[in-house]
Amino acid sequence: MNDILSIIGSNVRRYRLARGLSQELLAAHSGLHRTYVGAVERGERNISSKNIERIAKELGVEPHVLLRPYKGIRED
Amino acid sequence: MNDILSIIGSNVRRYRLARGLSQELLAAHSGLHRTYVGAVERGERNISSKNIERIAKELGVEPHVLLRPYKGIRED
Repeated sequence: MNDILSIIGSNVRRYRLARGLSQELLAAHSGLHRTYVGAVERGERNISSKNIERIAKELGVEPHVLLRPYKGIRED
Repeated sequence: MNDILSIIGSNVRRYRLARGLSQELLAAHSGLHRTYVGAVERGERNISSKNIERIAKELGVEPHVLLRPYKGIRED
C-alpha cells in the first residue's frame, strides 16, 4: 500500500527510531496514546493535521516532511 | 496565525485560484462539501490526511506540498 496513511506511518516510525524514541515516549510527549501512535505507524488511522503537527514537533521535523514519500537517504 | 491549519488553508486557496477552480468545483471533484472546503481554506477545520490527499489530487500537487509554508514563488 502506498497511500498517504502508509507514507505518514512509515515516516513517523523511521524518524522515531532514528531519535531512539519508544512509541510510549513519543506518544506521551505528543499528548497522544501509545496505541494511537502504533496505529498511525501501521497506516491504520486517518490522522488529523493537528496530530501530524504534534508528532512532527516531537520528532523535530516540519510537518510536511511526514507526508513526503521516502526515497532513500536524505540530507535533512 | 501560522499554525498548520492556516498553512494548509492558504496553500489550498492559492493552488485552487491558480487552477482557476471555484470552491464549488474543487469540492465536487474531491467528494467534499463546498462549505467544508471554505472552512479548510480559512484554517477552521482540522482536516484529515485522507481529505488532504483528496484535495491535493484535484489540485495536481503531492499532498505534502499543501503542508509546506509558502515562501514566495516556487518552481513546482
